[in-house]
Amino acid sequence: MSEINSWIGSSTADSITVAGRDLPGELMGTVTLTDLTYLLVTRREPTAGQRRLLDAVLVSLADHGLTPSALAARLTYTGAPEAIQGAVAAGLLGAGSVLLGPAGDTAVFLADARPERDDDEDLHRAATDAVEQRRGQGLRVPGLGHPVHRVEDPRTPRLYALAEEEGVLGPHLRLLRFVADAQADATGRRLPINGAGAAGAALVDIGIPATSVRGAVLIARTAGLVAHLTEEADSPIGMSLWHEIESRAAPPGGPAVSSSS
Amino acid sequence: MSEINSWIGSSTADSITVAGRDLPGELMGTVTLTDLTYLLVTRREPTAGQRRLLDAVLVSLADHGLTPSALAARLTYTGAPEAIQGAVAAGLLGAGSVLLGPAGDTAVFLADARPERDDDEDLHRAATDAVEQRRGQGLRVPGLGHPVHRVEDPRTPRLYALAEEEGVLGPHLRLLRFVADAQADATGRRLPINGAGAAGAALVDIGIPATSVRGAVLIARTAGLVAHLTEEADSPIGMSLWHEIESRAAPPGGPAVSSSS
Amino acid sequence: MSEINSWIGSSTADSITVAGRDLPGELMGTVTLTDLTYLLVTRREPTAGQRRLLDAVLVSLADHGLTPSALAARLTYTGAPEAIQGAVAAGLLGAGSVLLGPAGDTAVFLADARPERDDDEDLHRAATDAVEQRRGQGLRVPGLGHPVHRVEDPRTPRLYALAEEEGVLGPHLRLLRFVADAQADATGRRLPINGAGAAGAALVDIGIPATSVRGAVLIARTAGLVAHLTEEADSPIGMSLWHEIESRAAPPGGPAVSSSS
Amino acid sequence: MSEINSWIGSSTADSITVAGRDLPGELMGTVTLTDLTYLLVTRREPTAGQRRLLDAVLVSLADHGLTPSALAARLTYTGAPEAIQGAVAAGLLGAGSVLLGPAGDTAVFLADARPERDDDEDLHRAATDAVEQRRGQGLRVPGLGHPVHRVEDPRTPRLYALAEEEGVLGPHLRLLRFVADAQADATGRRLPINGAGAAGAALVDIGIPATSVRGAVLIARTAGLVAHLTEEADSPIGMSLWHEIESRAAPPGGPAVSSSS
Repeated sequence: MSEINSWIGSSTADSITVAGRDLPGELMGTVTLTDLTYLLVTRREPTAGQRRLLDAVLVSLADHGLTPSALAARLTYTGAPEAIQGAVAAGLLGAGSVLLGPAGDTAVFLADARPERDDDEDLHRAATDAVEQRRGQGLRVPGLGHPVHRVEDPRTPRLYALAEEEGVLGPHLRLLRFVADAQADATGRRLPINGAGAAGAALVDIGIPATSVRGAVLIARTAGLVAHLTEEADSPIGMSLWHEIESRAAPPGGPAVSSSS
Repeated sequence: MSEINSWIGSSTADSITVAGRDLPGELMGTVTLTDLTYLLVTRREPTAGQRRLLDAVLVSLADHGLTPSALAARLTYTGAPEAIQGAVAAGLLGAGSVLLGPAGDTAVFLADARPERDDDEDLHRAATDAVEQRRGQGLRVPGLGHPVHRVEDPRTPRLYALAEEEGVLGPHLRLLRFVADAQADATGRRLPINGAGAAGAALVDIGIPATSVRGAVLIARTAGLVAHLTEEADSPIGMSLWHEIESRAAPPGGPAVSSSS
Repeated sequence: MSEINSWIGSSTADSITVAGRDLPGELMGTVTLTDLTYLLVTRREPTAGQRRLLDAVLVSLADHGLTPSALAARLTYTGAPEAIQGAVAAGLLGAGSVLLGPAGDTAVFLADARPERDDDEDLHRAATDAVEQRRGQGLRVPGLGHPVHRVEDPRTPRLYALAEEEGVLGPHLRLLRFVADAQADATGRRLPINGAGAAGAALVDIGIPATSVRGAVLIARTAGLVAHLTEEADSPIGMSLWHEIESRAAPPGGPAVSSSS
Repeated sequence: MSEINSWIGSSTADSITVAGRDLPGELMGTVTLTDLTYLLVTRREPTAGQRRLLDAVLVSLADHGLTPSALAARLTYTGAPEAIQGAVAAGLLGAGSVLLGPAGDTAVFLADARPERDDDEDLHRAATDAVEQRRGQGLRVPGLGHPVHRVEDPRTPRLYALAEEEGVLGPHLRLLRFVADAQADATGRRLPINGAGAAGAALVDIGIPATSVRGAVLIARTAGLVAHLTEEADSPIGMSLWHEIESRAAPPGGPAVSSSS
């Protein structure tokens, strides 16, 4: 192995360096976790606007209630409460193509589709082409539609307004609007831009690499999962959920005996 | 199942509620991820001092270079780069009794040992008793000593100074100092308070439940892991590390042929 | 790093060696997965009796229906069906102190308690001492009791009979019976030896290191999880389970709108 | 939720049913873990030939030495030795598009490409079409080539010979040979059928659903990982690997101090 290098962190007997800065002297007490995330992933400090957008996106994705991800974490805690890292990991593992992953998928889709010049005309054409190509492959267009928020996802207008307010509404958020239009034109049915899609576009606009967006979402979701596990420790639902499901799944004529009976 | 409840989050067709607040209207653009973490875990908003300490602790634990956790994440990415959630999960799974877990272990140890009254005399006695009990059981005292930072962990004085500056230096951080003294008295050899131990004590002092501290550490570490995976995508070390280790492990007389030969 | 060695496997351009044997010539087509497991973990080939017991134990632990482990795997699949390794991992992560882990915990408990001589008198005394010690520490005695099988766990007599039939009923299975007696004497209430406890004892009796028993259980459980995920792909329950739980968890007066409404 | 059903397993106070059979009476002591795996996944009992092939495939995939998967498991164990389920999970999470996953990818590729009739002419045409399509999309043809076994993967001829001997050499194994020919014709360079590809084809030929093949591989790999963790407990390499890598990654002029110095 010729070389092993990492810019991210290192330490000596009396110093710790993270992101090229002295950890205790230059980072602790000075920057937020959000700042450090931006710094570690992009190797630049965020501007005030980038910081506010990144926080808004992370806050928007931290939790959505008793999702499959939260339930998997709680059920894992039921069996192994002493290894909370396993319960958090189980919750993160459901971040895939169906749930949680779409923010990253939209980011990659938009970054690939983005034209060289960012004027409205070129963005419009790029959106039309990209939608056509996805539809030709029988694939869904990422970033659009939501099973619950059928008319409008309440996170989307808020993210666009914040981006505009902070002067960081860039080509990916703009392209996503053209994509929604192109999809409506092609199908005759308008789907709202969902919160995950707007989040993915916003992260690329503030400088997060598109391929790192799925990862960034996981930081926020870890915060939500830790809250779920704190709640599960106090007011557990895993064990009773198990016994209810088991008794409902019992074959006719031979009901399972649950532990509470 | 009589009841399923969660305070954490819920949604309707046109609203999303997180932590009892309207997500787009009251949280996005207003609070940081650190604020939301505090709010979700404690169900209270942090004061300015609590927020600054929480950020300082999370920043102090986000990354320490090419640790076993970062290496496990990178090697997992080598085999499954399309499933970044798996690589992050692999990195978190190494947060146990040896690495990353000690912050939470110290938090639980101190919360258990804390006396009813927090004057110096009672803290001193509680520390002496707790150290004696651990030693009697043949167990290490958590929060003390570090393989690299043998004289002083540079994070520790910084955390104590920040806590004092913000007026949140509470009984757990104070108790930890008495624990270090009691350990030195009992063994004749002073070990420094390590950064993980000080971090765990500080989190309990600002109101994080001791049993949630290990989880809180994972939020910070997820940020570090996402940075490592961003770097691994650009400058991979996993594949060459594998081939080097495999060739070094080859039995005498029958060397493995690595893919680069 | 002075040395890296592994006995387990290696390869050259035209050969693959596993467990010191030529993989295609000596293992494939000759041994079962169970044989190879025994060989890899103990570095010896199993006798016919050891093989039959190991298979019986693995078969007894492969699946128990819609457990928290199976549910966590299915809910993870709901979000990330393209990364089945993540769903299997999520299912395994619930193997802890409460569920799935007790086989390994019983194995370690028995191995620690086992006296030097294995006659009935010494086993009886060791069992009494070990039960007393656990009770003195306020801990449960592992291997006893079951929430569903309150009178007798049907796996237990079968495992004992098989071990006797094969001549491998050893000191750990015998000690576990004395432990059940000692617990009944101490509490006045007899708890049945559970299937996990008998499984753990049997594995140590046939030569599996006690600390590897929890791992061995995971091999069997992986088979069960793959079956659950095959079924989930055909007849999914994850998505509808989510929507039901979410709607039941809705706060009064503000019901969530599920995607099917 | 209208219905929750699972065929896989259920229990009552005095019985446990797995795969529609009485667990203690009909499975324990009677079938191997491999038999049960086949039964659970396909809902049929294997023939003698199917059983032998399934065992041969699982044995062929259980371990390949100090792979990224084994290293990730060992490094996770370094940090959390008390939670072995986490170390196994970390090892499995590297089963993706690059490593371990190719058996399943080949299975799905062949099942999709398989023509209605299985005579040589149709298989040849299907292979040519499938190879052309993959190459047209800029994708690799799965199942071919190996970084170490560049001329022949020693597992491949063994699997074909066993399948022939047992009379279960079916259309997918045959199709894979035509695929190798078509690839050689198209590129002028013959790549050997790799062991993972032959394994995937063989599993579909004996009746495992193509989409369950990646899962089946994980069962075998769990056995290998448990062996690695047993070895890591006895002769650890994780900690020294960490310290070596950290010291090699040290920035020039500021070497890290490792814990052994």
